Amino acid sequence: MSTAAAGKGLEGIVAANSGICWIDGAAGVLAYRGIDIHELAEHSTFEETTYLLWNGHLPNAFALRQFQSQLTSARVLDQRMVDMLRSFPTTATPMEVLRTAVSALSFYDADEKDNSHDANVRKSFALTAQLAMIVAIYDRIRKGKEIVPPDRLLSHAGNFLWMLNGEKPSETATRTMDLALVLHAEHELNASTFAARVIAATLSDVHSAVTGAIGALKGPLHGGANEGVMRLLLEIDKEGADPVEYVKSMLAARAKISGFGHRVYKTEDPRATHLRKMSEKLGRDAGIPKWYEMSRAIELYINQEKKLNANVDFYSASTYTTLGIDIDLYTPIFAVSRIAGWLAHVIEQLDDNRLIRPRAEYIGPEYPTHWVPLEERA
Amino acid sequence: MSTAAAGKGLEGIVAANSGICWIDGAAGVLAYRGIDIHELAEHSTFEETTYLLWNGHLPNAFALRQFQSQLTSARVLDQRMVDMLRSFPTTATPMEVLRTAVSALSFYDADEKDNSHDANVRKSFALTAQLAMIVAIYDRIRKGKEIVPPDRLLSHAGNFLWMLNGEKPSETATRTMDLALVLHAEHELNASTFAARVIAATLSDVHSAVTGAIGALKGPLHGGANEGVMRLLLEIDKEGADPVEYVKSMLAARAKISGFGHRVYKTEDPRATHLRKMSEKLGRDAGIPKWYEMSRAIELYINQEKKLNANVDFYSASTYTTLGIDIDLYTPIFAVSRIAGWLAHVIEQLDDNRLIRPRAEYIGPEYPTHWVPLEERA
Repeated sequence: MSTAAAGKGLEGIVAANSGICWIDGAAGVLAYRGIDIHELAEHSTFEETTYLLWNGHLPNAFALRQFQSQLTSARVLDQRMVDMLRSFPTTATPMEVLRTAVSALSFYDADEKDNSHDANVRKSFALTAQLAMIVAIYDRIRKGKEIVPPDRLLSHAGNFLWMLNGEKPSETATRTMDLALVLHAEHELNASTFAARVIAATLSDVHSAVTGAIGALKGPLHGGANEGVMRLLLEIDKEGADPVEYVKSMLAARAKISGFGHRVYKTEDPRATHLRKMSEKLGRDAGIPKWYEMSRAIELYINQEKKLNANVDFYSASTYTTLGIDIDLYTPIFAVSRIAGWLAHVIEQLDDNRLIRPRAEYIGPEYPTHWVPLEERA
Repeated sequence: MSTAAAGKGLEGIVAANSGICWIDGAAGVLAYRGIDIHELAEHSTFEETTYLLWNGHLPNAFALRQFQSQLTSARVLDQRMVDMLRSFPTTATPMEVLRTAVSALSFYDADEKDNSHDANVRKSFALTAQLAMIVAIYDRIRKGKEIVPPDRLLSHAGNFLWMLNGEKPSETATRTMDLALVLHAEHELNASTFAARVIAATLSDVHSAVTGAIGALKGPLHGGANEGVMRLLLEIDKEGADPVEYVKSMLAARAKISGFGHRVYKTEDPRATHLRKMSEKLGRDAGIPKWYEMSRAIELYINQEKKLNANVDFYSASTYTTLGIDIDLYTPIFAVSRIAGWLAHVIEQLDDNRLIRPRAEYIGPEYPTHWVPLEERA
């Protein structure tokens, strides 16, 4: 058997050929299907970006209308799904609920047993629409509020805010949510996307792949990091502390500050640039600039002291809190967006599939160690 | 950025250091913690093997008793879990149900938010016991049968058969199930175990890792293969065909025969040796030798014609069918066993963790491709 040793965590190892995402970590470049994230952040929408990720090119007017209509029509949840969400204990966290409910969606999907390209595209519309609905509906249920039916006239971002809050979102709020969805939609072989591909490559199904990806995203080293940033901001606010002094004492105690540094980027995370701007504007418009200001002070200090740059999670926190969204929904919202990338990768994997099955370097007891009868054991 | 290209599917790439499983594919050797699978198959039990996998060495009499008692005490399912299983449509396949229900277990686990080593060991007992119960209970529910309460006097294998069938299993049946559980318990970085490690490495939780692993196991290139073998045997039986002639015509039509060949083994899969023997004995004892005989004829033919060896899935089929187990429970039973390995790997991963985040080789549209306004698109 010939094996090649990889860095721990497969760092720097190419695990797939992929035409979806281009990252140049040294130059701070992120592009979906060749188009720079800065152009998409400025001009695109979640629907258009998802079309781009799934199809490899931008849609023309007709294709975009059709795509939007397919996604809107997929805003349907079997009543038994809603009953199931109601049966969950309200102590269950939104990420546990999302993982469980997305897994259960396959029960009611007529295409469950069809793993063809076309069926997976159909399931992708359904899953993208349903995942967002589940996040909003469970939040209403756990708060004892009425469920809000979807509004077909709203965009994906707008409808999500509507179903979450039960009031029509402002233009700024919708634009902010849409931007956040565009920025988080895809990031090459991050851990959740890689988990989705590993699962899909056994020729399992799309629901299994997305369920596994949600489980991976839940971790604080991945999607869960944006919640860590907000908890820090809340703590500083509660204590009325100076943010720089607070972070300084955390560094002295060797505590980790969430939202800084990235395995891939050596420069600023290009997504942070847009969220910073959006968070500032939002805070100003809403008359609560403090979360942005606190964040900015911390960022400048960490930048100077540790030479670490803010990543996508850092300004997600101040952005979402200014939108009035609960902390434990930050990671689910990451999933509302990243599902676009997961599905692009699952379909790409299945179009030219091979089982993903690496090897381990064995470091255990020498072979052969012999089995001995119970009475002879120490 | 420096990256190293890996073979497709990470073939031959070392993705982790691990002290759990030693495989020498060229020599046909499989060992858990250094102990050859042939010795474990002959002498060990699922409980002892699971202790070995989790602790790195065989238990003494006291430790084994304590381990058995912890696993038996963990045979408890919150009533809300049972209600949830009852609410699922009976058309849902056991693997979909298992994936969903295992995910929901975290709602009722007091340790859900504790990702420490000790908490994960506690959760491992609970998950191992509960996963087997869920498989048995859902099968009773979908068949309209009464749920059978667990029996603390029975072993893990015996209790599973008891809860599944509602009658005390024969000694041969228990021994056969126990052997199957020992043989399937661990196999290094197979796709489901690797998925579990990728998920756990984000510092997500054990339930997320096991849920993702179940999704991966579901695929026909992984755990799902044993169902494929049985469907072939049933087809041959239904048509009253000669097994060799049938398989010959399948090969002529370039159809794939499930249960042969393995990414890692170049010789016979050492686990197949034991299942072959067990399947023969079971068939003789039960007075239905045909499944074994059919399997053996196919094996000898494929061996000679294609130089391919039977793998662990091949004789699982004739073994389980002779035990009277439904086809769509074969993969769930694989999970009943493999969870021992998944949990050993998750805990090992977390004891010395690093995020698993490989790179992709970009083959998409050239960067920069520019965003263009909708009306300028073709």
